[in-house]
Amino acid sequence: VGLRLEAWALQGLPEVRPGDDLAALLRDGGYEPGDVLVVAHKIVSKAEGALRALDGVAVGDRARELARDHGKDPRLVQVILDESAAVLRAERGVLICRTHHGFVCANAGVDASNAPEDGTLVILPRDPDASARALRAALPHRPAVVIADSFGRAWRHGQCDVAIGIAGLTALDDWRGRRDPRGLELRATAIAVADEAAAAADLVRDKVSREPAVVVRGLARHVSDDDGPGAAALLRPPAEDLFL
Amino acid sequence: VGLRLEAWALQGLPEVRPGDDLAALLRDGGYEPGDVLVVAHKIVSKAEGALRALDGVAVGDRARELARDHGKDPRLVQVILDESAAVLRAERGVLICRTHHGFVCANAGVDASNAPEDGTLVILPRDPDASARALRAALPHRPAVVIADSFGRAWRHGQCDVAIGIAGLTALDDWRGRRDPRGLELRATAIAVADEAAAAADLVRDKVSREPAVVVRGLARHVSDDDGPGAAALLRPPAEDLFL
Repeated sequence: VGLRLEAWALQGLPEVRPGDDLAALLRDGGYEPGDVLVVAHKIVSKAEGALRALDGVAVGDRARELARDHGKDPRLVQVILDESAAVLRAERGVLICRTHHGFVCANAGVDASNAPEDGTLVILPRDPDASARALRAALPHRPAVVIADSFGRAWRHGQCDVAIGIAGLTALDDWRGRRDPRGLELRATAIAVADEAAAAADLVRDKVSREPAVVVRGLARHVSDDDGPGAAALLRPPAEDLFL
Repeated sequence: VGLRLEAWALQGLPEVRPGDDLAALLRDGGYEPGDVLVVAHKIVSKAEGALRALDGVAVGDRARELARDHGKDPRLVQVILDESAAVLRAERGVLICRTHHGFVCANAGVDASNAPEDGTLVILPRDPDASARALRAALPHRPAVVIADSFGRAWRHGQCDVAIGIAGLTALDDWRGRRDPRGLELRATAIAVADEAAAAADLVRDKVSREPAVVVRGLARHVSDDDGPGAAALLRPPAEDLFL
């Protein structure tokens, strides 16, 4: 008998607001040892107050120029720039940015939808790995925690959820050096387990009806007592990247 | 009660050889209506004879040059070029190619590991959407079929399985125009359902011990009687791509 994966969303969570105790809200997940809890970053951001009000934004020259060229709100663009270490592409109204964490994604992860009130933007948590570790430590049976966001991809349409914060789940399962049944070395392979777990969780999440937390069961072999290096281990250094 | 996703690998499959009837090998999966069968492309390629023997390869000048510059077998490089519409990057021993199908991946999907015998390369199926449709049609209860391969990503370490052939599963679940609980339009969102299903399936697959077929249950809402446009719908046209 092989492995079996199961995933389901926690039901009945309230709207999360700044200052909420996320661990208290997520406490009754019925976790078993070895479970993985995948949480949409938005509720982490909201609980932590990782929000920006459009009203208070002082717009600089670069934001004004980008906003004009791409038909965007200059205040939104300024917040995107504030969250970015670099703007990699600005074309056809899309800003692809590298965030201060090192994630490459549209608009540096800044999002106006699902914000707690009009005129407020949700930004990414300041340190998603730390957020994941704190949440894990506060939950019964310490499930591994993945904080997920939906990222577009180069070359392919559509978005997949990926891990932007991890505590206790293998980020990369490195198969390099292992051999196939005939003894040949396998093609260089490091499976992005946490990203695949985030993707699996997304398949059961209803984004409109508030299902931001998903339990994934069946990955215990990738769950460690130690919190591990987090999603930082997934970031390819810019100097090694072929597509910057 | 929300959605529930389950995934498990079929057990006891034999080594697949050219000319094998894949549908016959996969017939006893216990499929229920609405199931998705995710199949590693390698067994499709092997059954279809999508293989190249290194011995018969006539190496051209460009392959010889690339092989020299990147420390690769010139015959392997020639097969990679044969499978490629374009070589996008050739750096540090890595060839990132766009295949004739339009997929962007390392080595145009050409793989020497897990080949049926030494000196043989497994290439991608000629028309993976057609392969998926044929397999679906021949299986009891016509599960949706996804043919998967492991692709690296720009900007992130590690590989995730993605769909290179699809029959009967939504490739992109388009949420554009839908609204959040406050009535705000959701951020442009098209969820790459078939890619996420491929990723979920990969989490239960043991790549060494021959578990190339995974049943994913719980996605019936994305399974259609019609086979749909296939994985071709996932390909961003080169003219629209910001990272070519």
